Amino acid sequence: MEEQGLLIVLSGPSGVGKGTVRKHLFEHYNNDFDFSISMTTRQQRVGEVEGEDYFFRTKEQFEEYIKEGRLLEYAHYVGNYYGTPIDYVRETMAKGIDVFLEIEVQGALEVKKRMPEGIFIFLSPPDLDELKSRIENRGTDLPDVINQRMDKAREELQLIKYYDYVVENDSVDAAARKIRSIIESEHLKVERNIERFTKIIQEMM
Amino acid sequence: MEEQGLLIVLSGPSGVGKGTVRKHLFEHYNNDFDFSISMTTRQQRVGEVEGEDYFFRTKEQFEEYIKEGRLLEYAHYVGNYYGTPIDYVRETMAKGIDVFLEIEVQGALEVKKRMPEGIFIFLSPPDLDELKSRIENRGTDLPDVINQRMDKAREELQLIKYYDYVVENDSVDAAARKIRSIIESEHLKVERNIERFTKIIQEMM
Repeated sequence: MEEQGLLIVLSGPSGVGKGTVRKHLFEHYNNDFDFSISMTTRQQRVGEVEGEDYFFRTKEQFEEYIKEGRLLEYAHYVGNYYGTPIDYVRETMAKGIDVFLEIEVQGALEVKKRMPEGIFIFLSPPDLDELKSRIENRGTDLPDVINQRMDKAREELQLIKYYDYVVENDSVDAAARKIRSIIESEHLKVERNIERFTKIIQEMM
Repeated sequence: MEEQGLLIVLSGPSGVGKGTVRKHLFEHYNNDFDFSISMTTRQQRVGEVEGEDYFFRTKEQFEEYIKEGRLLEYAHYVGNYYGTPIDYVRETMAKGIDVFLEIEVQGALEVKKRMPEGIFIFLSPPDLDELKSRIENRGTDLPDVINQRMDKAREELQLIKYYDYVVENDSVDAAARKIRSIIESEHLKVERNIERFTKIIQEMM
C-alpha cells in the first residue's frame, strides 16, 4: 500500500533565509520529495524549461486558473502573476511523493485554508536584531524599505500560531537538519501508518 | 524562559529490541534527556546505586506508593514490584529535561492515562516472521512459550492506534535515528514555543 505524500510548506519573514535553507536541504539530504513548480505569466527566459522551472502561461490562462479555483495560492508581483497549481500538488502527493513549497507568509496562510493537512513550518530569525542586520546587509535597500520590511517581519512573527512547527535559522545546516527531522517524524505518525499495520495484523490472524 | 521537558515513552512487543534501540540512542546521540529511574522491591545487588540504578524500597513502602497514586505505572514480576515514580518524572520535566521511558505495552497504556501529554512511540518488528525468529533465536524458550509470545505480540500490535508514532526496527541504527528525529521535531512544535515567541514579539513593540 502506498502512503500518501505530504505537503511541506516552508515559510517565514522576507529575508530570513528560506531559499538558502531550502537549497541546503535539497543538496545535502537524500530527499524523496518534489519541489513544487510554480505557474507564472512572466516571460520564459533563455534556458528555462516549461514544467521544470515554471509552468509558463498567458495572463488570460492564469486568470482562468484563478477563477476556477485551481491555484493553491497566487500573488501578483512586479506586473506578473505567480501561483501554485493545486492539481500538480495533489497528483504528486497521490503518487506517494512529498511536495515541498517555499513561500511567503501570506501565501502560506492561503495554502493552509485550502490544504490544512499540510505541514506548516515557520522559519524564524534567531532574534529580530539579527533579522534587521540581514535585511540591511543586502545593501540594496533604502532605510525606509528596511523599516517597512522590519514592520512586516513583526507582523508576520505574530502569525506563527497558525503554523505547526517553528525552526530558528541560527545556522543553515542546523535549520535544514531540523526540517528533515520534522518531515521524517511526520511520516512516522501512527495516523499515517495505521492502515498498513491493520493489514499486517489481518494477515497474521 | 525554560521550556518544559518531554516525556518520551518507547514501547513495543516483547522481543522487538526496545532495550537495544534505547542503548544505541543513548550512546550515539548527544542526548539531553534522562532515562527514567524505576522503583523496585527487589534486593539491591552489589555495585547498584540507590537513585541511579533504581530506587530501592520495601514491599510496604512500594504498596504505600501504589495506594497514594504516586506511580506512573507498576508491575509485579517474579515476586517483586517494579514501577515509575511520578514525582521524579514531573520534577525532571519541570527542569526542562526530557524523560525517557522504555516500557512494556500494557505499562505504556497506563502511563498514557496518567500523562496523555507524553510522546508515545511504538517500536514494531519489520514483519511478524522476523519477530518470531527473534523470539526463537533467544534459544532459551520452549515452543509453548514462543507461541504465547507471538499471540501477545499480535495483541499488542493492535494497540498501535493508541500511540503517536510507529517506528519499525528494521535496523537498530535507523530506528534510533528516527526516534531522535521524533524527539527533535516534537520540540519544534509551535505549541511548545509560542510563549517564547510571544515574549520576543512583545519586546519588539
